[in-house]
Amino acid sequence: MYQSHYFLKTQYSAPKNEVSRNAQLLEQAGFISKLMAGVYTFLPMGWRVLKKIEGIIRVEMNKAGGQELNMPALHPIENYITTGRQDIDIIFHLQSKSEKKMVLGQSHEEIIVPLVKKYLTSYRDLPLYLYQIQTKFRDELRAKSGILRTREFIMKDLYSFHAEQSDFEKYYSKMKKSYSNIMNDVGLGNITYLTAASGGTFSKYSHEFQTVTENGEDTIHLCRNCKTAVNDEIFDKKNSCPECGNKEMEKKKSIEVGNIFPLQSNFSDKFHLTFTDKQGKQRPVIMGCYGIGLGRLMGAVTEIHNDKDGILWPKSLTPWQVHLLSLGNDESLDIEAKKTYEILKKNNIEVLYDDRQESAGKKLKDADLIGIPIRLVVSNKTKSSIEIKYRNKSSAKLQSLSQVTKEVKEYYQ
Amino acid sequence: MYQSHYFLKTQYSAPKNEVSRNAQLLEQAGFISKLMAGVYTFLPMGWRVLKKIEGIIRVEMNKAGGQELNMPALHPIENYITTGRQDIDIIFHLQSKSEKKMVLGQSHEEIIVPLVKKYLTSYRDLPLYLYQIQTKFRDELRAKSGILRTREFIMKDLYSFHAEQSDFEKYYSKMKKSYSNIMNDVGLGNITYLTAASGGTFSKYSHEFQTVTENGEDTIHLCRNCKTAVNDEIFDKKNSCPECGNKEMEKKKSIEVGNIFPLQSNFSDKFHLTFTDKQGKQRPVIMGCYGIGLGRLMGAVTEIHNDKDGILWPKSLTPWQVHLLSLGNDESLDIEAKKTYEILKKNNIEVLYDDRQESAGKKLKDADLIGIPIRLVVSNKTKSSIEIKYRNKSSAKLQSLSQVTKEVKEYYQ
Repeated sequence: MYQSHYFLKTQYSAPKNEVSRNAQLLEQAGFISKLMAGVYTFLPMGWRVLKKIEGIIRVEMNKAGGQELNMPALHPIENYITTGRQDIDIIFHLQSKSEKKMVLGQSHEEIIVPLVKKYLTSYRDLPLYLYQIQTKFRDELRAKSGILRTREFIMKDLYSFHAEQSDFEKYYSKMKKSYSNIMNDVGLGNITYLTAASGGTFSKYSHEFQTVTENGEDTIHLCRNCKTAVNDEIFDKKNSCPECGNKEMEKKKSIEVGNIFPLQSNFSDKFHLTFTDKQGKQRPVIMGCYGIGLGRLMGAVTEIHNDKDGILWPKSLTPWQVHLLSLGNDESLDIEAKKTYEILKKNNIEVLYDDRQESAGKKLKDADLIGIPIRLVVSNKTKSSIEIKYRNKSSAKLQSLSQVTKEVKEYYQ
Repeated sequence: MYQSHYFLKTQYSAPKNEVSRNAQLLEQAGFISKLMAGVYTFLPMGWRVLKKIEGIIRVEMNKAGGQELNMPALHPIENYITTGRQDIDIIFHLQSKSEKKMVLGQSHEEIIVPLVKKYLTSYRDLPLYLYQIQTKFRDELRAKSGILRTREFIMKDLYSFHAEQSDFEKYYSKMKKSYSNIMNDVGLGNITYLTAASGGTFSKYSHEFQTVTENGEDTIHLCRNCKTAVNDEIFDKKNSCPECGNKEMEKKKSIEVGNIFPLQSNFSDKFHLTFTDKQGKQRPVIMGCYGIGLGRLMGAVTEIHNDKDGILWPKSLTPWQVHLLSLGNDESLDIEAKKTYEILKKNNIEVLYDDRQESAGKKLKDADLIGIPIRLVVSNKTKSSIEIKYRNKSSAKLQSLSQVTKEVKEYYQ
């Protein structure tokens, strides 16, 4: 992509109307644009990052047997009257001119349970794992955490349906592993902890994936022995680690980046979702649900991976794999840079090529701010070589084009 | 995919609460499920079709220089007061508990124009082509056309920004070609016509892509000479073809499957979106917008490609490339069918394998209803061969597994 044609403008300083680090960085670097409190546009570069997150999540959900579908955001209020959730405070109500009262989906239990009931009859139809990657709406009172907590966001929500409690438990454990894989893949693995948490109204307990960071909205108590944690909301000071008994729990600020719930038969009971078992008896379906907010995950990655100059994208999420800069106004440099660009593209490397008529200082500053892991520079100093520098290292080195291509391909393998 | 594990249940007959052919077929065959009037869930098989449509459209938009982003569905009402569209009848209003009045996006001119204004300054930033594939909400009074006209739907909307009228016109022609490519790719090419239409409030004129079918909501006047048409809403009986002068225009029912608008500077003027030209003068940006509803396109394809037994998917959109059926309860048949399934999968062929404990009659009926282009049957009659039959042909033939694999690969090349 030629940067001169790209819908990307960095800002000289962080936007003044943002208090969270993620929104400051992502807006300044041209990934997102605020429309109103808690509502953001993903600009082309930000959308590339979100699509990569989507791809990583989809792979894991498919590996876990998930079948992808797509449910609407417009929900009939009747379904919420059935569950008693019609007045929860984050729900957006709307009145259709032609017809009935509706709400905007803040989650999809009220839709998927009646849907599955339409089709499910026997134990032979179980287990069943359905998921979607779809937009949710929540009327958050305080939306000051950038893309960590927004009024509209894309979420992956998977719902599992089981005949037996033991089968549910097996799948719940499997999902913990899937979520760990996702956290590893997006570069949060080493600081994200499986955390025991309250289950809210519809679940005895739940598990969160909490990423430790000083700017987090949540508080957890961390066990260094077994790498798990307990959410402050259910933590008693006398408590020790529920896994290993360790009494030295560390109190830490954190961001919730995923949440899984054993729903048991709470929703099945309300909608009379049952199945015929092998003995011909009607029994309620056991359920679990498993959520990840894609924007929130992107925000968390930004909160963790940055320095004073900008973002440092993990290689799995970087909007482009290489940032190629031509510094100086020499025409022969342009030819050299274009040749480099074409060769890298031919090798299936994603290249953002800064061909703008800007000063070297501005281009280098923007490259650090945007945070692509590998920066390549063509300038009068580099002559027929190319300077390669990693965003997380201070030293650079000169290499031939074929060496650079090889090194980049190896890095992203 | 093993059909016994798939979230797919066909219905014995068409649902009684649907009047449109597309919804009857798609619901009966297990592609969609109605939540309420004009609001549908895309079941796993339907979602696969929609994703293929999305892929085809994305390729064409990228080829035309489009940069993909994602704008929100929650819009501040102020932007609509600016354009005077705050009270158009299809708009959903909602009140946030914490803050201001919002509407649900029925289109995105009110969002993208102020967005581009934030970043665009000079003629050097033009032209610019931005698009998204995102969910729109329209409070349609009558939503009786299945997925042709819904209250919530996924739409591709591209907006183009130009310095000069001539540059806009060049791009507008290019988009006509892109849309023709899309219509060809989804199997509607030979019955879809570029149609002159009214421009509504914000445009002098517009062009629609109209697919001729008896069940269409629209009426067009078709010129067989130059393969274009005129929408009835702007057609005068004395009129001849605006392209070639042909006086024998045929009146036909049709479905609008795409719409492109020259917005000129109508929205730029309202939001004061200007650019600095080469002479340093401020001038309004010239715009065009280009929409396609993905669900509507899928509905139109279904309306066109069906017979009394079910759907006939074009090869580009079929949810699976091959429907493999094992008929009979012989264990050796299962082994043969599984081997076939594995070999086809190894050849990167998408296979739906009907391994259910159902009668041969039910399986064959379901296969016709679902409408995958190629059906493969393993049964006692086929012995060590496989029966291959195309959905649009009545005859079948017996082949070896390697012949079948070769033929399927060639068909989908």
